[in-house]
Amino acid sequence: MNNVTSTNSPEANRETILILTPLARFYQEYWDNLLQLSYPHELVTLAFIIPKNREGNAATTALQEQIAKTQKSGPEKKRFASIIIERQDFDPPLASQSEGERHKMENQKARRAAMSKARNSLLFTTLGPSTSWVLWLDSDIVETPPTLIQDLASHDKPIIVPNCFQRYTDSKTKQAKERPYDFNSWQDSETARKLGEGMGNDDILLEGYADMATYRTLMAYLAEEEGDRNQEIPLDGVGGTALLVKAEVHRDGAMFPPFPFYHLIETEGFAKMAKRLGWSATGLPNYKVYHYNE
Amino acid sequence: MNNVTSTNSPEANRETILILTPLARFYQEYWDNLLQLSYPHELVTLAFIIPKNREGNAATTALQEQIAKTQKSGPEKKRFASIIIERQDFDPPLASQSEGERHKMENQKARRAAMSKARNSLLFTTLGPSTSWVLWLDSDIVETPPTLIQDLASHDKPIIVPNCFQRYTDSKTKQAKERPYDFNSWQDSETARKLGEGMGNDDILLEGYADMATYRTLMAYLAEEEGDRNQEIPLDGVGGTALLVKAEVHRDGAMFPPFPFYHLIETEGFAKMAKRLGWSATGLPNYKVYHYNE
Repeated sequence: MNNVTSTNSPEANRETILILTPLARFYQEYWDNLLQLSYPHELVTLAFIIPKNREGNAATTALQEQIAKTQKSGPEKKRFASIIIERQDFDPPLASQSEGERHKMENQKARRAAMSKARNSLLFTTLGPSTSWVLWLDSDIVETPPTLIQDLASHDKPIIVPNCFQRYTDSKTKQAKERPYDFNSWQDSETARKLGEGMGNDDILLEGYADMATYRTLMAYLAEEEGDRNQEIPLDGVGGTALLVKAEVHRDGAMFPPFPFYHLIETEGFAKMAKRLGWSATGLPNYKVYHYNE
Repeated sequence: MNNVTSTNSPEANRETILILTPLARFYQEYWDNLLQLSYPHELVTLAFIIPKNREGNAATTALQEQIAKTQKSGPEKKRFASIIIERQDFDPPLASQSEGERHKMENQKARRAAMSKARNSLLFTTLGPSTSWVLWLDSDIVETPPTLIQDLASHDKPIIVPNCFQRYTDSKTKQAKERPYDFNSWQDSETARKLGEGMGNDDILLEGYADMATYRTLMAYLAEEEGDRNQEIPLDGVGGTALLVKAEVHRDGAMFPPFPFYHLIETEGFAKMAKRLGWSATGLPNYKVYHYNE
């Protein structure tokens, strides 16, 4: 593009960040966390896509209230460059007719296909020629380091993903604990590759089903106590709860396939598509962000 | 999106059109043809992507001169809603080391992969939430009916493509004649499907090589003297010289694969990807647009 860069020192180079969030429910903690990000807000554009249904209406109202507070009456330093809200008609989710594993898998496929289309709509309509980075941030991510953007960008990778955990209280000991949450960041396995080869064109590989043991190496399980936060590992699939992408990767055409792409969809399919375009993905097993605990 | 429509009466519904042109060389005839399009210009945004090289610099200068004339001193009715120019670094084209057919095919693959990335960059950075239609129009299309947009949109199809011809003077009779030019709009054949099945993941099917007879039905050869301009045929592959797409198709994620996608790339791969997203392509064999004759 027109002399746009995406470097390991984005702040010094005044690089612009587009934060993209598919939003179904509004969490105040998500917004508060966004506000405490220390990357200069005047270089950050936020964009949301929200379903056109009752829950989406409520989320839109709650979001707009917070936006008004931040952008109009809040301190100037906290204001973002711009904020875009898009509303989208979604296909109604499949009614689960059975709790069988096969049906759960079918439901996940339909749900993630719909999510892929939402991500693509949001991406295609908000990415600009001067965007340097895209940060995908799910609406239920409620805690990240304030330096999230600088930290991830400092690795200077086309696609980089932190480890998504969840805080909880141990019901017996009443102690504060944490557990891995997002299982979509992984390194491929021979078993998964062979499973894929034996599948029909329209079938997808999914994590977390006993019927379909993939033996992939999941980043979720690679975090170490006191581990080096900067440790990098190569990834073949990525999750999208928090995900930093050089805008160039998307501009080349990398999107979230709503259809099975090498038996992968959504964010996992995105990593595969990016790889076909010559871009690789990196994971940070010891750099944590936290998911809301319902 | 936010109540955006794309209907068979776009003018009555004040639907916005984004005309996208990858531009390597500037032809005055292209610009003059654009100016004579009768769709209300205030509903039309033009966007160009131009390579960052010497030829691209010359094209940019020539284009900017015409833009200034039209947008500043020209009649208000002729002015477009907005015009965007993007410059892009392209990978240097492969030097052809041999005239063998295998090498010509390799070159076409590299050239069309680069073109795919240019199209994707242009698309991802200019499509907005309120765009109704995208008209892809190559910079060497020098003659179309003034009602091109209304005519194509009136069919109310997700993807529709006219037949691209070229005018020339018969060297013997000195008579004005025309011949088919774009061979990328086709209906698939059993032979092509079987060829694809026998190929490696990275191989692509191409039209126009004796080594690779596909026996596809090419729209280029289906035009009839005095044929009905509104006659529709279903297509499996499309060319991009002139191509009207409902914005929704792109927003769902349909882009131009720079990598082999079901053994297809660029505009042909786009049609296949759109089909995977549930959108089909239509051709108008007797509705003609004309390519520049070097």
